[in-house]
Amino acid sequence: MSSDRTGLGHTRTLDVFWGDCDAAGVVFYPRYYAWFDASTHAMLTAAGLDHHTLRARFGALGTPLVQASARFLGPVTYGDRLRAECVVTQVGTKSFTVQHRLHLGDSPVVEGEEVRVWAEAVPGDRPAMRAAPIPDAVRAVLEGRG
Amino acid sequence: MSSDRTGLGHTRTLDVFWGDCDAAGVVFYPRYYAWFDASTHAMLTAAGLDHHTLRARFGALGTPLVQASARFLGPVTYGDRLRAECVVTQVGTKSFTVQHRLHLGDSPVVEGEEVRVWAEAVPGDRPAMRAAPIPDAVRAVLEGRG
Amino acid sequence: MSSDRTGLGHTRTLDVFWGDCDAAGVVFYPRYYAWFDASTHAMLTAAGLDHHTLRARFGALGTPLVQASARFLGPVTYGDRLRAECVVTQVGTKSFTVQHRLHLGDSPVVEGEEVRVWAEAVPGDRPAMRAAPIPDAVRAVLEGRG
Amino acid sequence: MSSDRTGLGHTRTLDVFWGDCDAAGVVFYPRYYAWFDASTHAMLTAAGLDHHTLRARFGALGTPLVQASARFLGPVTYGDRLRAECVVTQVGTKSFTVQHRLHLGDSPVVEGEEVRVWAEAVPGDRPAMRAAPIPDAVRAVLEGRG
Repeated sequence: MSSDRTGLGHTRTLDVFWGDCDAAGVVFYPRYYAWFDASTHAMLTAAGLDHHTLRARFGALGTPLVQASARFLGPVTYGDRLRAECVVTQVGTKSFTVQHRLHLGDSPVVEGEEVRVWAEAVPGDRPAMRAAPIPDAVRAVLEGRG
Repeated sequence: MSSDRTGLGHTRTLDVFWGDCDAAGVVFYPRYYAWFDASTHAMLTAAGLDHHTLRARFGALGTPLVQASARFLGPVTYGDRLRAECVVTQVGTKSFTVQHRLHLGDSPVVEGEEVRVWAEAVPGDRPAMRAAPIPDAVRAVLEGRG
Repeated sequence: MSSDRTGLGHTRTLDVFWGDCDAAGVVFYPRYYAWFDASTHAMLTAAGLDHHTLRARFGALGTPLVQASARFLGPVTYGDRLRAECVVTQVGTKSFTVQHRLHLGDSPVVEGEEVRVWAEAVPGDRPAMRAAPIPDAVRAVLEGRG
Repeated sequence: MSSDRTGLGHTRTLDVFWGDCDAAGVVFYPRYYAWFDASTHAMLTAAGLDHHTLRARFGALGTPLVQASARFLGPVTYGDRLRAECVVTQVGTKSFTVQHRLHLGDSPVVEGEEVRVWAEAVPGDRPAMRAAPIPDAVRAVLEGRG
């Protein structure tokens, strides 16, 4: 079962620094995904679902990615201040999708999606996890009903 | 004009370290894109197109991404040694696509694509570039005819 | 010639995210240096010496490090909000020292120093730079007289 | 009680990639610390003390840093292949020191030290650890007697 209506959202500003850029003077593209990840965590934290709570109260090991993609629409350089928006666009039984958009002034510069699963630890010799049903209380928050 | 046949390819091994992993003990996903990027550069370098050459001989500022995506198929942790394969799957007038696959032993753990443009610098107040036609000598290498 | 009195300073807050932490759940220590670097750039930018200006107006290629050190005084984890202070403590002919302190609430958690040189590009086959005298207008700012 | 004689050592090669460099075309300095960290882990792993073993057999949460420093002796750029050497130079009751040297051909380009503690987890609301005595079997390895 899934929901297509728009759910939880969040907006933050982020400053682009020298160390985020490569030898062409523009953002090294993996950094955008680190910002996506941080935005998702900031969104969950603002909704009362910081990761320490996810672990302690809901038994999640994490919300690992099964898929991520991005389109890079314009160059961004050090000194730029971006507006980072994200919104939950889909909530499935064990997974959810977060859409991200970064703007520089009025111009969109990056857009992308993360598909994440709700994961619990699997005991064993090496770190392992398996997808598990998203708890109802978490689902309500993700769907914007929390 | 584009070519769909498989072009230039490259395989390398990479070791996953403690610092590549997050608090769940598995690779922090933006790192995979950094490895994609490094694989692409290693492939180009092995074919005689290291980035210093791209700049000095062909006038490219870089090969920035316009699109990137990945599917994460299984957990990877510190101490793992991966086989990283990449191959040029498409060469357009100004862009080319690199497909990436990471294996842990016989298991695929990540697969993804990068769409890159051949870019030259645009003079001005801030770092800027524009897509430009891929030079014939570079195209021949990307298409596996070099 | 050098000056020992305290010069330019800056304070900012920074949020610690999931992706900044390692498998022990605490900040992966190289990230602290990335924050030092960002704080130094934020300080210079606030004083009118953003890096684009350093390049365009003063001909600097950058302010590369010749030395950096840090003491890690207490664990920091995702969700923490830090106060990052930095101050120029020494300005030499071609180099300057920035002292950094990170606080979590009232507790210092990291302190360190960067020694940077004022560098200009050296033409040639590969990126190279050499230390050059700090321009007077820049020196005045670094010494807190700007 | 401590030992000043040189202990366990390790050498590896590492390739510098585009994404390791900043807008000046040289390595962004926090990356050197990530390489120090990786070298230390590679050294411990080669000696049978990979981190999974440290956790499962010896109960360590990690070997967090209390201090790190580096001197940057020459520029390094993408495409460079470095020789990374490290050696344990001091083993205390609860801490040990690793000295690192990076060479480009015959030229030293970076040297530094990490002071690490043997740490065990402290139960509680947030990730926390405390220094603990280094187990004898680990000490023997670090001192090069393993």
